[in-house]
Amino acid sequence: MTVSSSRDPAILVIHGPNLNLLGTREPQIYGSTTLAEVNQELHALAAEHGAQIEAIQSNHEGVLVDRIQAASGKVDYIIINPAAFTHTSVAIRDALAAVNIPFVEVHLSNIHQRETFRHHSYFSDRAVGVICGLGPEGYRAALRFVLQKMSLWT
Amino acid sequence: MTVSSSRDPAILVIHGPNLNLLGTREPQIYGSTTLAEVNQELHALAAEHGAQIEAIQSNHEGVLVDRIQAASGKVDYIIINPAAFTHTSVAIRDALAAVNIPFVEVHLSNIHQRETFRHHSYFSDRAVGVICGLGPEGYRAALRFVLQKMSLWT
Amino acid sequence: MTVSSSRDPAILVIHGPNLNLLGTREPQIYGSTTLAEVNQELHALAAEHGAQIEAIQSNHEGVLVDRIQAASGKVDYIIINPAAFTHTSVAIRDALAAVNIPFVEVHLSNIHQRETFRHHSYFSDRAVGVICGLGPEGYRAALRFVLQKMSLWT
Amino acid sequence: MTVSSSRDPAILVIHGPNLNLLGTREPQIYGSTTLAEVNQELHALAAEHGAQIEAIQSNHEGVLVDRIQAASGKVDYIIINPAAFTHTSVAIRDALAAVNIPFVEVHLSNIHQRETFRHHSYFSDRAVGVICGLGPEGYRAALRFVLQKMSLWT
Amino acid sequence: MTVSSSRDPAILVIHGPNLNLLGTREPQIYGSTTLAEVNQELHALAAEHGAQIEAIQSNHEGVLVDRIQAASGKVDYIIINPAAFTHTSVAIRDALAAVNIPFVEVHLSNIHQRETFRHHSYFSDRAVGVICGLGPEGYRAALRFVLQKMSLWT
Amino acid sequence: MTVSSSRDPAILVIHGPNLNLLGTREPQIYGSTTLAEVNQELHALAAEHGAQIEAIQSNHEGVLVDRIQAASGKVDYIIINPAAFTHTSVAIRDALAAVNIPFVEVHLSNIHQRETFRHHSYFSDRAVGVICGLGPEGYRAALRFVLQKMSLWT
Amino acid sequence: MTVSSSRDPAILVIHGPNLNLLGTREPQIYGSTTLAEVNQELHALAAEHGAQIEAIQSNHEGVLVDRIQAASGKVDYIIINPAAFTHTSVAIRDALAAVNIPFVEVHLSNIHQRETFRHHSYFSDRAVGVICGLGPEGYRAALRFVLQKMSLWT
Amino acid sequence: MTVSSSRDPAILVIHGPNLNLLGTREPQIYGSTTLAEVNQELHALAAEHGAQIEAIQSNHEGVLVDRIQAASGKVDYIIINPAAFTHTSVAIRDALAAVNIPFVEVHLSNIHQRETFRHHSYFSDRAVGVICGLGPEGYRAALRFVLQKMSLWT
Amino acid sequence: MTVSSSRDPAILVIHGPNLNLLGTREPQIYGSTTLAEVNQELHALAAEHGAQIEAIQSNHEGVLVDRIQAASGKVDYIIINPAAFTHTSVAIRDALAAVNIPFVEVHLSNIHQRETFRHHSYFSDRAVGVICGLGPEGYRAALRFVLQKMSLWT
Amino acid sequence: MTVSSSRDPAILVIHGPNLNLLGTREPQIYGSTTLAEVNQELHALAAEHGAQIEAIQSNHEGVLVDRIQAASGKVDYIIINPAAFTHTSVAIRDALAAVNIPFVEVHLSNIHQRETFRHHSYFSDRAVGVICGLGPEGYRAALRFVLQKMSLWT
Amino acid sequence: MTVSSSRDPAILVIHGPNLNLLGTREPQIYGSTTLAEVNQELHALAAEHGAQIEAIQSNHEGVLVDRIQAASGKVDYIIINPAAFTHTSVAIRDALAAVNIPFVEVHLSNIHQRETFRHHSYFSDRAVGVICGLGPEGYRAALRFVLQKMSLWT
Amino acid sequence: MTVSSSRDPAILVIHGPNLNLLGTREPQIYGSTTLAEVNQELHALAAEHGAQIEAIQSNHEGVLVDRIQAASGKVDYIIINPAAFTHTSVAIRDALAAVNIPFVEVHLSNIHQRETFRHHSYFSDRAVGVICGLGPEGYRAALRFVLQKMSLWT
Repeated sequence: MTVSSSRDPAILVIHGPNLNLLGTREPQIYGSTTLAEVNQELHALAAEHGAQIEAIQSNHEGVLVDRIQAASGKVDYIIINPAAFTHTSVAIRDALAAVNIPFVEVHLSNIHQRETFRHHSYFSDRAVGVICGLGPEGYRAALRFVLQKMSLWT
Repeated sequence: MTVSSSRDPAILVIHGPNLNLLGTREPQIYGSTTLAEVNQELHALAAEHGAQIEAIQSNHEGVLVDRIQAASGKVDYIIINPAAFTHTSVAIRDALAAVNIPFVEVHLSNIHQRETFRHHSYFSDRAVGVICGLGPEGYRAALRFVLQKMSLWT
Repeated sequence: MTVSSSRDPAILVIHGPNLNLLGTREPQIYGSTTLAEVNQELHALAAEHGAQIEAIQSNHEGVLVDRIQAASGKVDYIIINPAAFTHTSVAIRDALAAVNIPFVEVHLSNIHQRETFRHHSYFSDRAVGVICGLGPEGYRAALRFVLQKMSLWT
Repeated sequence: MTVSSSRDPAILVIHGPNLNLLGTREPQIYGSTTLAEVNQELHALAAEHGAQIEAIQSNHEGVLVDRIQAASGKVDYIIINPAAFTHTSVAIRDALAAVNIPFVEVHLSNIHQRETFRHHSYFSDRAVGVICGLGPEGYRAALRFVLQKMSLWT
Repeated sequence: MTVSSSRDPAILVIHGPNLNLLGTREPQIYGSTTLAEVNQELHALAAEHGAQIEAIQSNHEGVLVDRIQAASGKVDYIIINPAAFTHTSVAIRDALAAVNIPFVEVHLSNIHQRETFRHHSYFSDRAVGVICGLGPEGYRAALRFVLQKMSLWT
Repeated sequence: MTVSSSRDPAILVIHGPNLNLLGTREPQIYGSTTLAEVNQELHALAAEHGAQIEAIQSNHEGVLVDRIQAASGKVDYIIINPAAFTHTSVAIRDALAAVNIPFVEVHLSNIHQRETFRHHSYFSDRAVGVICGLGPEGYRAALRFVLQKMSLWT
Repeated sequence: MTVSSSRDPAILVIHGPNLNLLGTREPQIYGSTTLAEVNQELHALAAEHGAQIEAIQSNHEGVLVDRIQAASGKVDYIIINPAAFTHTSVAIRDALAAVNIPFVEVHLSNIHQRETFRHHSYFSDRAVGVICGLGPEGYRAALRFVLQKMSLWT
Repeated sequence: MTVSSSRDPAILVIHGPNLNLLGTREPQIYGSTTLAEVNQELHALAAEHGAQIEAIQSNHEGVLVDRIQAASGKVDYIIINPAAFTHTSVAIRDALAAVNIPFVEVHLSNIHQRETFRHHSYFSDRAVGVICGLGPEGYRAALRFVLQKMSLWT
Repeated sequence: MTVSSSRDPAILVIHGPNLNLLGTREPQIYGSTTLAEVNQELHALAAEHGAQIEAIQSNHEGVLVDRIQAASGKVDYIIINPAAFTHTSVAIRDALAAVNIPFVEVHLSNIHQRETFRHHSYFSDRAVGVICGLGPEGYRAALRFVLQKMSLWT
Repeated sequence: MTVSSSRDPAILVIHGPNLNLLGTREPQIYGSTTLAEVNQELHALAAEHGAQIEAIQSNHEGVLVDRIQAASGKVDYIIINPAAFTHTSVAIRDALAAVNIPFVEVHLSNIHQRETFRHHSYFSDRAVGVICGLGPEGYRAALRFVLQKMSLWT
Repeated sequence: MTVSSSRDPAILVIHGPNLNLLGTREPQIYGSTTLAEVNQELHALAAEHGAQIEAIQSNHEGVLVDRIQAASGKVDYIIINPAAFTHTSVAIRDALAAVNIPFVEVHLSNIHQRETFRHHSYFSDRAVGVICGLGPEGYRAALRFVLQKMSLWT
Repeated sequence: MTVSSSRDPAILVIHGPNLNLLGTREPQIYGSTTLAEVNQELHALAAEHGAQIEAIQSNHEGVLVDRIQAASGKVDYIIINPAAFTHTSVAIRDALAAVNIPFVEVHLSNIHQRETFRHHSYFSDRAVGVICGLGPEGYRAALRFVLQKMSLWT
């Protein structure tokens, strides 16, 4: 996918519920990298290749639906970590389908090692790809893939 | 059910998440009728038979719960298209049960032709009736049924 | 779908097993409208918009299969209440597929409030739309929808 | 239930598909008693206590539905061996519910010793009682129970 | 099965847990016939045809297992209403298999109309026949069948 | 199996519901061979090897049950394509078991590529063999196999 | 429920299998409170509000059934910790239903954190309420609730 | 758990969706106690033992997630009635896990007597304990347990 | 595990329901070895290696629970054939867990060749090891293993 | 499919594990025809119609995958009896998909009469057709079908 | 089974994938006994009683199938630890059935304490017996049983 | 994980069955990159950061098991695309567990969009992380992650 619109190539990064706590709680488990730092790295990496990143986080499903709808026509790719909404939100799934923006699904932990209900995702069968268990590197791997798809990185 | 209270007969129409996009996206699939136009038709049809319609849409489950609670004692019938919440929201189900207002469930598309998880509804066993696959006509069919039930149309 | 053949637009209404008893038994539950009256209303409504209705009822699955086959090339739309055959007849499903006539599925009662085995239909995933729980009004709603599809009603 | 109508107490005995072969095939398994003999015994036993029996058999589901409908108002109790239809016929189930005549379900063989699909019956949860595995004596046991219910036998 | 041993033909009637309360509690539901009266009727009917009945009741699974083991070589047929043990006791099932005495399973109520867990029996696939829903008449029907099998009644 | 009765070896070919439409509808899918032509080929092939074929088709389950019963003692082998009844008819299964005539099950299409409910057959575990997906050649393959079994073809 | 019979208000506390070991084994897990101490606290609390407590424990299902039957007419409320019988005893469930005494179900540990088979209880759908995971305080909470229901505590 | 921080011991009480209607609707079912009165009782009981209660209610899942996050480091124990969110909210479950505050789950009604989907809770396997069916007393029982755990009540 | 207490090393052998019949019934199937002979062999083998065996059998679940509880502190290893209780007794499972004595599970027959309900054991996931299908040799194999674990046999 | 390449039409016949034993073991069950004889017949029949057959057998899944890959561009049709790999080999399924050669699936026995795990095939939904239960004739029937598809036989 | 052929009694011991690592990895878990030592013990024990042992190990399913086929007529009993193939190999199951040599299934660990997919074995229902959890002693117990069956050990 | 052994850091890349065909078949779907090119890129990227890559492919499960065993002590991290073995090979899973080398699971396509049986992996719950749907970039993303874990890339 070569992005050739007049505006700059744009990527929306969506963090689901409770991810605002990243790095500030249980650093021995999740590491001490905060969500702000994760986003900062993504901004830098994208900027380096001529793309813009907007990153949002919300604990409110409706807010995420609204934000995805607003991305229509303004965003080329979405990187989403739906967190708890992975397993419960058809509304966000439908919003992604409605705006028809390709997206990559990312999970920090390996969801296959957790409770059975976390093995099902309402997103994976609609995603371009899925990455889990790589920690914050998962976001960067998704971003590099997206940049390649947008012909901004080889 | 003959409505005989001092106020006018009132019907609440509820549109669930992503339905605000109706008519503006993928018109070749969903048609070019917008949600505003759907509501306008329902207003006109109801007014013709002496009933008032209020129509709301939200992508936020909590907003819909609040609105249903507020309808208690002020609304005689509800027509609801829960969209994605059809399959995930016990809270809206419980709100409808709490206010004890009869309701008809409407879906624009035929949910039986879609993903398996869309075959289950948290609303159908509490609804008076269910209509799916008729597009915007589904709302009108529901409204005509409701008007009959309210003895406003024969 | 605009019907433009030389013959008049034709709609076949099919009532499944035990519906011949409608209106004559348990009127406090199912109402006192008989099947003949339902059909009469449908005839009148169709005639008013330039379409012909033929309505049949049978308790024999084979008779319904034969009748659907015979409709090939002579009927533009089918409205069917398969009743008990909803849950057991692949043969009628296959007949509908073989003649390739679009159809609307109607149920008088809300099947989602009844026994679990009534929650599955062999017809819904092939139907254009499904209506349940509206009583005899369900047939009329289906007919209005069909007339619209045939550009005979707006 | 004391039967006090002007007509004689009447019991309808229904034999489902393939039961017409009883006694004429595999007598080492099913015994050499024919269906005619079974019916004769039931007639005699009923007559002895002042009740009339009509016994029918059909391999056609629709015929059985028609016959049950026709029994409305003329029959006080039904004894039914649905045979293969036990596991497949919602239409006969619905006919029995429509005429609202109490019935006893009988099976010659012990269906719990046969294929898994024979363990589910569409009739048992609507029946007054169920008897299986007693061979032709099962019909007689059902008849004695029915005669007691009709206060014709103690 | 013709019983030709030197002792009298013997039938063991087993009543499972809580059946000792029969007739003394909730007579509007279960009738006012007590278990003693049921047993008395069975004794009389058996005696009339030259057979002996022993009837026991226990709320203790182990007691029933012991009693069935003791019946080996002394009892020709068992009539058992396992009551709650129907759904939980492999031990009684195994005891019946060990002594290899044919048995008829009886339930007073129609277990198909009750909780789902009552639809499975550990006994039915080993029983000669199963009777349910006929109330105390179920025991008598079982006894008549057993007497026939023993060539004591025609 | 060597057929040595006084009459000619006889094979019954049974076509289930909707197969009467073969070749006349959707020829691009099912080919333009009609059922009459299929039967003609089977007649010719059988006659060539000294066997008689009778071929029937019905949309009525009861008719097929009746016809199978009538074949008892007059038919040596059955070739059956139960079509939609494959998945719903215990009555035809039981009829085949009752007359105890060996049979081969044939399906024109590959049922494993279709809806999930078509993956279960009430016939396959009782059939000698099963053929699907070979189109009309499936019938001929079944016939050649049957002729071999009857020692009429090598 | 106000208890107004001539005898004192009476509460039966039932402890299921292995609870006799409470406090004497693995005190680091279950605490060092013995069953006798638990019962003593309940006696004191009940006495303080004018009610009598009888507390029993058994490893024998039949003993518990017998005891519940004997409570009929003599006990106003039951507090039961069925322990292992929670998941296996229909007989105790039936005994509680037969005597029709309201009961509260108590578990010392949180059964939702244990093996899957412990997530199903044969008692919960018949209980007035269920308490788990509170340790011995669970019994006291149940008793306070029962005393309130009996209008002995506010 | 002895609370020894400089601030007062603090307990957060969370009421899920539709609980704001408590006491004002269907008082014959749920009683006439309002949520405000329930909270008032809890405040009084806590204050009596030196603890502070904050009670919140919301129909919005996101609001509850936000509030739980904000409790981190400020609250010692949570008492939560997730109501409809019991069965659908992984986000609230995750928030509770993230702040790592022990909690007791409370339900006013006995959820085991209601629809099957209410038998599963996303909270019970993470809760310290679960109480259901005791009505408003359930909250008080939970509070007494929490006060004991905090060594504020014996 | 080296047994070094002052008393002799002790092993408890538990035989579940109906095993008292071993060798006396159906010897062509189960062999003619009686339970007494099995126990005698185990006594001899244990004595030879300096260990004491106590062997018990009961058809009463409660008796087995009591006996296991009594073994606490007096028995080093248990060999148990729970027979029918394998599939139904959580109480015995819990008793074994409570006394925390390691145990080996033995079945005379190969339970994997029997009814499906015999494929699940409430004991296997708590056992050290499981042996089935070896007949009486299974007990001896278990005993040799236990003696090794107790350093009494190499 | 008319084969018009410069090379001769080529058919690959694949026999899965244990089929090398055909005819040499249990001839009373599987007949005395050896795999060599089966292949010889297929060679002769193919040669007669101008096609070449190569037949292979292996007990090694990897060998079959390698061989199928090697067939790419050199084989026009595959006839495969995957034997035990029918139920376990996704690798062979994928190899067949990768080379995109149409294939017919053959089983000597009727797999629907065998263990439940044999009812599922990883091949049937990708095969052109499936034949089972016809013994060695199944291979010949498949070959005739393939020859027809290649316009080499009519 | 008394072995009376001219050759010596022969037993084949089969170790499945990854068992070649036994004793060399994680000795704290699996012990320090190597597979060679296990085999040496079995050789010694067999030789002592006049039987020959051949022991093989492979990580290749096809190699094991080949080896089992080759054992036909040369081996009297098989002891097999299928390891990972326990849960996936129908081919080895079929090979064992084809050669019709009785076998005992052995697992070093208690598979009932491991992942759910390890609870199903493709071998157990065909095995004479199954032993798990006894470590290397499991092989010796199997060998002693086999020697007894061959009348070489008492 | 900082690699500090005397040898160079080593990474094993494993490609499962049919991946040898990558790039040479259906390039419009899978792209025209061959497996050799994928490996070349990985070699280059690893070399750039001071690590060695060995890459292997096999269609034989046993070969992969052997190779993983041989990696013990010589390889620091494994990147594996098990392809078809993802869903069927417990042996490879066990080999990975036995050598205890951390691994990342990679799939070229998004397995969540394919057949249901591809949604289960025998590897994911043991993997450090899982990547699917990113095509060859998936391998590179895994390698970058591994290099980071080995402190060779930041």
